[in-house]
Parts: sequence; structure tokens; C-alpha cells
Amino acid sequence: MRYRATLAYDGTGYHGFQRQANAAPTVQQTLEEALHAISGQTIRVIGAGRTDAGVHATGQVVAFDLDWRHTPLDLRNALNASLPDDMAVRDVQGARPDFHPRYDALSRTYVYRLYVAPVRDPFLRFRAWHLTSPLDIRTIRQAAASLVGTHDFSTFGTPPQGDNPVRTVYEARWEAQPGEQHLFSITANAFLYRMVRSVVGALVTVGQGRMTVEEFVGILAARQRSLAGLLAPPCGLTLVAVQYSDDG
Amino acid sequence: MRYRATLAYDGTGYHGFQRQANAAPTVQQTLEEALHAISGQTIRVIGAGRTDAGVHATGQVVAFDLDWRHTPLDLRNALNASLPDDMAVRDVQGARPDFHPRYDALSRTYVYRLYVAPVRDPFLRFRAWHLTSPLDIRTIRQAAASLVGTHDFSTFGTPPQGDNPVRTVYEARWEAQPGEQHLFSITANAFLYRMVRSVVGALVTVGQGRMTVEEFVGILAARQRSLAGLLAPPCGLTLVAVQYSDDG
Repeated sequence: MRYRATLAYDGTGYHGFQRQANAAPTVQQTLEEALHAISGQTIRVIGAGRTDAGVHATGQVVAFDLDWRHTPLDLRNALNASLPDDMAVRDVQGARPDFHPRYDALSRTYVYRLYVAPVRDPFLRFRAWHLTSPLDIRTIRQAAASLVGTHDFSTFGTPPQGDNPVRTVYEARWEAQPGEQHLFSITANAFLYRMVRSVVGALVTVGQGRMTVEEFVGILAARQRSLAGLLAPPCGLTLVAVQYSDDG
Repeated sequence: MRYRATLAYDGTGYHGFQRQANAAPTVQQTLEEALHAISGQTIRVIGAGRTDAGVHATGQVVAFDLDWRHTPLDLRNALNASLPDDMAVRDVQGARPDFHPRYDALSRTYVYRLYVAPVRDPFLRFRAWHLTSPLDIRTIRQAAASLVGTHDFSTFGTPPQGDNPVRTVYEARWEAQPGEQHLFSITANAFLYRMVRSVVGALVTVGQGRMTVEEFVGILAARQRSLAGLLAPPCGLTLVAVQYSDDG
């Protein structure tokens, strides 16, 4: 029986989602170990997004095959009792036998969090990028608008081997909240490796007046990875949702 | 020259505020080491509140004597460059030579954070108490109202040796926020050891229907530590402000 689960995790303590050859703990491996602990079965988990080391999730979607005699709710509770407290299964449901969280996904939404303040906030040290110089939201929003649509995003990331670098961005929204917190949310059919962090780095460069909107549009059009500049740190990034055709 | 500083810290990695004889890192010791690192001087720091292990602060107030040839702003920046990133000095200013952050404080405000959800939130694991059964805000607020005023709080905490257990609570407010987050804020002239966590434990017991408001009022009046029951975990507690007569 195939199951689909929605996962939240604080990525601080993990070397990314994907299982690695060396001993470094990853999200996938930790979830597979919890599945083994509750069932005795050796389970392979597939995830929708291969989040990097230090990147978080509130809506990662995973799939796995498991023999389980109880309800999906029991499975959720058993997993949460077995997982470390920096991970949690928010929801488990039965899925089609051929459901694949990565291939079936229509789009993914990431949120990048940052804040501007003269002094760092100790409570955000693993959760947001701390900036000290002010941001011009107006120019950031102009630059962000140029991301929407279908583009070759080679400047901002690298595709998996053999894949092409064209992606479609459905939405790119920069919001400033009280207390100088900023949230950048971006939805695309898929993302290149490091694409969100690279886009945020360039948008911040625009917001600090060190790159014009025209230059931003220019580096996107140039399709050259070397032009991207600043890479935003992983701690600010969260995979918040993955959309499928059967979502509502 | 005496300085007064406002301090924020994530208490997760510290064995409380106060310097201890053994090697466990404390907030006081860490700040004293940063002061030594930037000045070469051996400095003794006094804090307004002796927060417990795992308890946080956004508005702890400390005082220390230091020979410093630059501005208070330079001092703030130098300290923040030297402190670990789970601590931050929000503000430094010159103070009266006899300023004492504990004796001169008129009152302190603590906030306790908890949330009700079937599944834990990995991002709140060091920041809030996770409860799974619902709370009746109405009865909690009735019970909380009985705390306001001058009472012998022996049921809810222990005074320092030789001190009396009478304290004056100026405000005790329980707020429920969207997403079943609850914030309990309490302001008093001073607090007994473990008083806020003990009060929160009893209020939750009321909110879960396992103690009536009358029983809550009764155990407060009984002045017996053994009656307090549940002690809320330290991770939910934050010292948010200390009030002085010269605050605006």
C-alpha cells in the first residue's frame, strides 16, 4: 500500500533531504529509520523536493510503500512518536499505487524569510537571513515581477544532469511585515538547484541599490550562472507547499 | 563607568542566567567573557531576573562597570561581534553609578507561550509548550484574574532564602491567537522561583477542566507549594521587559 505524507522539519540539524552515502543525518534517512522502527520493514521514501542542508519545510510531501494494518491516523501518530522533535508528520493518507511526489507535482511554493535590523534576533538565527542595511521594496518588487513566466533560469541555478534549465514561475511575491520582516514567496512548476536562494540574493542586491532593476532583468536574460552574485543563506528558506492535481 | 544593557537570548543552550560553580555555560558567564574579550577587564555582570535553564529573554536588563573609551553604541556592536549568535545586546546606555537592575526594578513582565495542536510544530520545540487537548479560555481567564493584586504566592513558588513570599501582580492576561497559539503575559513587582511556570501549569489544568476556578482560587489561598501540581516546561517562558522609574 502506498502512502502520501506531509512533513514539517527544522532543517538545521540535517544535511538536506536526500539520503547520503556518508553518515551525515538527512531527512529521508531519519524518516526511513522511523518507518523501520514502527514496522520492521525496510522502506524507501521519495520526496517532492530535495531541500538543501539547513533548508526547512512545513509542507514537504513524501511517498512510501508500507504494510500497515491500522489507520493512516495511527500511522501518523506512530511516526511522530518515533521521529526526533525537529521533524513532524502533519498528515498521512493512502495514495494511488503509482503516486510519485516529484513527478506528479504541478508546482512547489517556497518562502524565504529575512529581516532588517541593527542587532540580530537570537530566535531567528536558524530561521531568517539577518540584514542590517535597509531594502527598497519598490525596486525589489519590480525585479521580482520579471521572474514570472517561462524562462531559462541558468543564471540562478543549475538543472539536474540531463535536464533543461527552463522553468515556469507562476507567482513571485515580496511582502514586508511589521518589524522589518520580509517574506518572499515563489511558486514554480519546478526549481533549479539553489534557484530560490540565488534569486533572493540578487533581489536583495537590487533592494540595497547595488543593482538596478534593468541589470536584474539583464542577468536573467544572460543565462550565465556566474552573473548571479550573492547566494542567500539556507536558514531563511522553507518549502511550504507542493501542489498536485488532486488537491481539492 | 556603569552601563545598563538590554539583552535578548535563546535560553536553550544555557543553564540559566546566573554564573554557576561548575562548567555549565550560563548567560551571565557568557556575557562576562564577551566583556573580557573586548576590554581585557574582568567584569562582574548583574542581571534583573535570574532566568532558569531553558528560559528565554527578549528584555533582560543587566548592569556592569567598565572602562570604555568609545560610545555606548560601539560597545553594543563590539559585544554583539563577540557574543555567540544565541545572544544579542539590543541596547547599551550609561547608567547612574549606583544603578542596580534587580533592586531598582519596579516590575518585570514575562510571557508564556503554548499551543494546542494534534501534531507538534518542529519550529516551536524550544519556544512553546505543546498541548494536544483543547483549552477553555473562559475559565482560564477567570482563574488568571484572581492572581492580580497582592498575595502570598507560596503555592506557586519559593522565595529566595530569608525573603517573604508576598508579591504584587499588576496584570495577568491570557490571549488566544490564530492557529491555537496562546500567550500568557504576567507583570508583577517581582516573582518567586518558578512562579510563572507553576501558575501556567495550574491555569492549563483549569483550562482542561481538571480543576475548577474555585479550586484554583482555593490553592492560591492555601499557600502550600505541594498543591500547585503541573509545572509548565521552561521552553515556553520569556522575560520580555523590566520596568524602572526612569523608563520614559
